[in-house]
Amino acid sequence: MTEEVALAFDDTDLLPAITQDADSGDVLMLAYVSPEAVKQTLETGLAHYYSRSRDELWQKGGTSGHVQHVEDVRVDCDGDAFLYRVEQEGGACHTGYESCFYRELDALNEDDTAEAEVVGEKVFDPDEIYE
Amino acid sequence: MTEEVALAFDDTDLLPAITQDADSGDVLMLAYVSPEAVKQTLETGLAHYYSRSRDELWQKGGTSGHVQHVEDVRVDCDGDAFLYRVEQEGGACHTGYESCFYRELDALNEDDTAEAEVVGEKVFDPDEIYE
Repeated sequence: MTEEVALAFDDTDLLPAITQDADSGDVLMLAYVSPEAVKQTLETGLAHYYSRSRDELWQKGGTSGHVQHVEDVRVDCDGDAFLYRVEQEGGACHTGYESCFYRELDALNEDDTAEAEVVGEKVFDPDEIYE
Repeated sequence: MTEEVALAFDDTDLLPAITQDADSGDVLMLAYVSPEAVKQTLETGLAHYYSRSRDELWQKGGTSGHVQHVEDVRVDCDGDAFLYRVEQEGGACHTGYESCFYRELDALNEDDTAEAEVVGEKVFDPDEIYE
């Protein structure tokens, strides 16, 4: 069944996109997308995002080679979040971990810091990838 | 290994939290959290969020009974996104689907709408839950 979905880009230029490893189900990262980033992703089959800090469209893996081959793109009930289901080359996180969510939260402190346990797996050495 | 993580709540009051079914790996929803919502989640073991539209802390399932038992809470590399890994009672989406990401995007139109295919599974009738 095909539906027409209203996307909530009109409220804001960017919306969050979750990236998930299509095989393992691991959640790899969360980033932001513009309409153009979603279009490029659908057209090329490679994950594109929009960098809020650099204020530009970027293709994941453009620098590191750790590209994401996109199996499909899902949209949520409210049209204000996306889910990229991908095959990840290398690791998703710039720290060298497979997933950006490599730490488990123990407790929040009063000063907006938190204690966390490292539970993820390192899959590459960032010093060898980002020069 | 335990680390201290700086959370990015200082830039904004709310941060995105992804919710994932801990057993199946399915991504269920994306919502926003305040520091208090994360604290309540860690303390009670039940997923709490912050509603941007109602401007209040809420416990998932408070109305519907579809609570989320939280196995662990992960935090990402930049301290600006969370991942709740949960056991979901009922369905996560208010539409009756198990996951809010029940539609696969085919193409974006010029007017911020999109064509999407329904691929998710309905697990409850919202008319019987939300009166």
